[in-house]
Amino acid sequence: MRGAEALVGSLTAAGVDVCFMNPGTSEMHFVQALDAVPEMRGVLALFEGVATGAADAYARIAGKPAAVLLHLGPGLGNGLANLHNARRAGTPLLCVVGGHATDHVRFDAPLESDITAVARTVSGWVHTSGDVRDVAADAMRAVAATGERGGQVATLVLPADVSWSEGASPAPPLPVAGPFPPDPSRVAAAADAVRAPGATLLLGGPALSAAGVDAAGRIAAATGARLLVETFPRCWETGAGRTRIDKLAYFAEQAIEQLDGTSSLVLAGARSPVSFFGYPGVPGDLVPEGAAVVGLADPATDATAALEALADVVAGDAAPALAPHGAPEPAPGALDVRGLCAAVAATLPQDAIVVDEALTAAASLAVSLQTAPRHTQIALTGGAIGMGLPAAVGAAVAAPDRPVVAVQADGSALYTAQALWTMARERLDVTVVLINNAAYSILRVELARTGAGEAAHSGRAGRMLDLSDPTPDFTALATGLGVPAERVTTTEGLLDALRRAQAEPGPHLVEAIVPALG
Amino acid sequence: MRGAEALVGSLTAAGVDVCFMNPGTSEMHFVQALDAVPEMRGVLALFEGVATGAADAYARIAGKPAAVLLHLGPGLGNGLANLHNARRAGTPLLCVVGGHATDHVRFDAPLESDITAVARTVSGWVHTSGDVRDVAADAMRAVAATGERGGQVATLVLPADVSWSEGASPAPPLPVAGPFPPDPSRVAAAADAVRAPGATLLLGGPALSAAGVDAAGRIAAATGARLLVETFPRCWETGAGRTRIDKLAYFAEQAIEQLDGTSSLVLAGARSPVSFFGYPGVPGDLVPEGAAVVGLADPATDATAALEALADVVAGDAAPALAPHGAPEPAPGALDVRGLCAAVAATLPQDAIVVDEALTAAASLAVSLQTAPRHTQIALTGGAIGMGLPAAVGAAVAAPDRPVVAVQADGSALYTAQALWTMARERLDVTVVLINNAAYSILRVELARTGAGEAAHSGRAGRMLDLSDPTPDFTALATGLGVPAERVTTTEGLLDALRRAQAEPGPHLVEAIVPALG
Repeated sequence: MRGAEALVGSLTAAGVDVCFMNPGTSEMHFVQALDAVPEMRGVLALFEGVATGAADAYARIAGKPAAVLLHLGPGLGNGLANLHNARRAGTPLLCVVGGHATDHVRFDAPLESDITAVARTVSGWVHTSGDVRDVAADAMRAVAATGERGGQVATLVLPADVSWSEGASPAPPLPVAGPFPPDPSRVAAAADAVRAPGATLLLGGPALSAAGVDAAGRIAAATGARLLVETFPRCWETGAGRTRIDKLAYFAEQAIEQLDGTSSLVLAGARSPVSFFGYPGVPGDLVPEGAAVVGLADPATDATAALEALADVVAGDAAPALAPHGAPEPAPGALDVRGLCAAVAATLPQDAIVVDEALTAAASLAVSLQTAPRHTQIALTGGAIGMGLPAAVGAAVAAPDRPVVAVQADGSALYTAQALWTMARERLDVTVVLINNAAYSILRVELARTGAGEAAHSGRAGRMLDLSDPTPDFTALATGLGVPAERVTTTEGLLDALRRAQAEPGPHLVEAIVPALG
Repeated sequence: MRGAEALVGSLTAAGVDVCFMNPGTSEMHFVQALDAVPEMRGVLALFEGVATGAADAYARIAGKPAAVLLHLGPGLGNGLANLHNARRAGTPLLCVVGGHATDHVRFDAPLESDITAVARTVSGWVHTSGDVRDVAADAMRAVAATGERGGQVATLVLPADVSWSEGASPAPPLPVAGPFPPDPSRVAAAADAVRAPGATLLLGGPALSAAGVDAAGRIAAATGARLLVETFPRCWETGAGRTRIDKLAYFAEQAIEQLDGTSSLVLAGARSPVSFFGYPGVPGDLVPEGAAVVGLADPATDATAALEALADVVAGDAAPALAPHGAPEPAPGALDVRGLCAAVAATLPQDAIVVDEALTAAASLAVSLQTAPRHTQIALTGGAIGMGLPAAVGAAVAAPDRPVVAVQADGSALYTAQALWTMARERLDVTVVLINNAAYSILRVELARTGAGEAAHSGRAGRMLDLSDPTPDFTALATGLGVPAERVTTTEGLLDALRRAQAEPGPHLVEAIVPALG
């Protein structure tokens, strides 16, 4: 059996049965193996960043890794930003990078580069398969590695000859390490901390399951501890009927205000909060001075189980404070960010998956979604923009029966807009709400915040933050990539368009024109 | 003076006065410095790969480096594939990557990653600026480094605080090392080699200037040596009235046939030829068995001067065999690749710059362009696709008085189609001939060549090489990004569209529908 066929067959036997790919010459035998191994679903992306972002979101929703297939060092480079996001989210992800045939490496051919050096910056495990007899076993070690440290990227470099040679055999799956169980001494310490006045419980990573947020709600109800969710949750079960929890703000000054008065900060699956960027004169560490930081569960620990154990100790039969049902329709009129977010919430189907790359609209979106029908939120955990549309692809592949709504800023959409084509090809049930304000609005805000100046709307500097002249026409772009699209400028138009989009199967894009900030 | 202002001012004083950028929060002071230093032209890209590809081509045409400005590790990742191409082309390129403020690094904030590890894979020089007092001098060392080893990428990591702090002063330019002068002993050895029967002179890199190809033509005329140009020339002065030279073929079997009978292979600015990929049973080293390889000038040497020195020794007053004028119009009818290439040649303005990312159409294009009006050809030197449209941006910025024609395959266009927007914003005089065959045609060919199978047109594997269902509509895409576009299906339609596009200023895209190969 050829290496590629043994590899692909072993992957599907281990439960890795989706591969997001953008292959090249060195990966042709892997591609060909799709005919021999029908259990593997190949999903073509027009750009590697689409494949890696999709694989990240797939695993967040499916709870198991997908594979990506990339072409040599440049293909890995193109996928790197969304692998960075996966690394920051603790996502299990199997990254297969095709390499030159072993005998060809010495020629330093044009596409040769240091694949492993790049891969190491985003992967917890990197290995180059050196022999066709080992390749299936190498792949099984890679799959097992994706589950370590709470979930990580494992990169297998696959030389073309290892893929094309005969002599391989399938290898059996290896046990995948789950997260660490809760540590009773940490649960006890956290119990003392949440009972004290001024306690804040910060939830993140694996704490944000339905059971995790329910346990957190019970803890808060029993102890009076405040609840917060990290700014960019990897996968958050939220909405009406679930524990109502505010997000920690993106801007450091606001986050500092939210955390003011905290005497002890208990971390459940979240890291200790820091400012996203450094700013002149603003502290980077957001923990209030003098507050104790108590780690209940780090991101590699089963934070949901830890919260349940903590609730057993402190909460008795307390009931969580749930978010009420009711996301009112916004009033008709010209669209603005607030009306847009309200319209998304008002039309959200039950059990939808919301992908949030709304950037300057994210704070308003978070407020609107609190009382929207219950749903799962996926956010930009690693901060590398261009994740939203790829993530919508991955979420829809992982959960074909659930509608996906991507709330997407314009500037970041343009990094990986090729994802729209994959939505069309795979007939994915995704509604993209494209917020077109014709600017890098977040950078206008950041320019002022970093003290660089106020002239962000004009002049030579302002032009670098402006997306007008020409303003991208996302309706044309989406149509060009095979996704039906329409443009709206009023809240009533948006409500109608969203309802139409959600009533029809397959992808839709609604381009919502809103005024730029400031 | 703030660090950013001293940095930008020093760059322009050193002749680096164009910066292709996709900035983020950590680069806001660099952006703001554009207002203080009007000599620096900022060119906004919607994606980092556009910025890096543009900077590569800018330097190939302008003969001096441009800067790129990227946002942290993920921004560098997005730009990596075209930095790989620049590395392979020996392009001088200054890569400035914004980093977190020095005091912020310890917090391991979401966007933190190992920037230098990634940068080292494409750069000959990497340095992190550690103090505002040094930043301008660091930048001058970086610019000087871009000229070393025949041209390379130099990466300066710029922490946000080094950019925003006061206390900087401008620094004077440092001498930039030029290429090494020709080595007389190598010229003498090459003279013996080219005079022997069965000599082939392979030209590449810096040998392909007007003076270089003229000297090569004289050498060939005097000695009977055969001339060839490397498969993907970085910048080649060619066309009617210049020395007629064939390109070495992309496919190893054809290249081996071309080199058959060569007893000595003289390298002028080119590397010893190797197969682009390894294939089962095909040799990777393309030098015929027993042939002597004689290095006249490696890519870090002034290969044009070496050729002139060689011509002085061997050529006397011999005149080169020039390519004749005359690129006939193709016959009317349904468009195919041959007709498309003939139409490009027939309508090519004098002294145009042709960016060739035509892939499966490249061989036909090379033949057609031999007798087209004299022009400069830029090719995909490093093999990382998605360079063509960005390169057209960079070439047009470098040479505003020269028309640019980008002959662009569909699959690779979709990697970095955002470049169209920059063409529109900067009103660049670029005509894109988009070859839409709705497939990764090159991979269909490669699938068979690697022995993976013949079923590339159907089945689950074939679907991964197919770009139909849905077929991207490049006319809609270009329109959405602000570039006027039209679709043609006949040679006469293409001829008309090209003439109209070239008669009007600003960018145009002509979507040429051709049948897929095979």
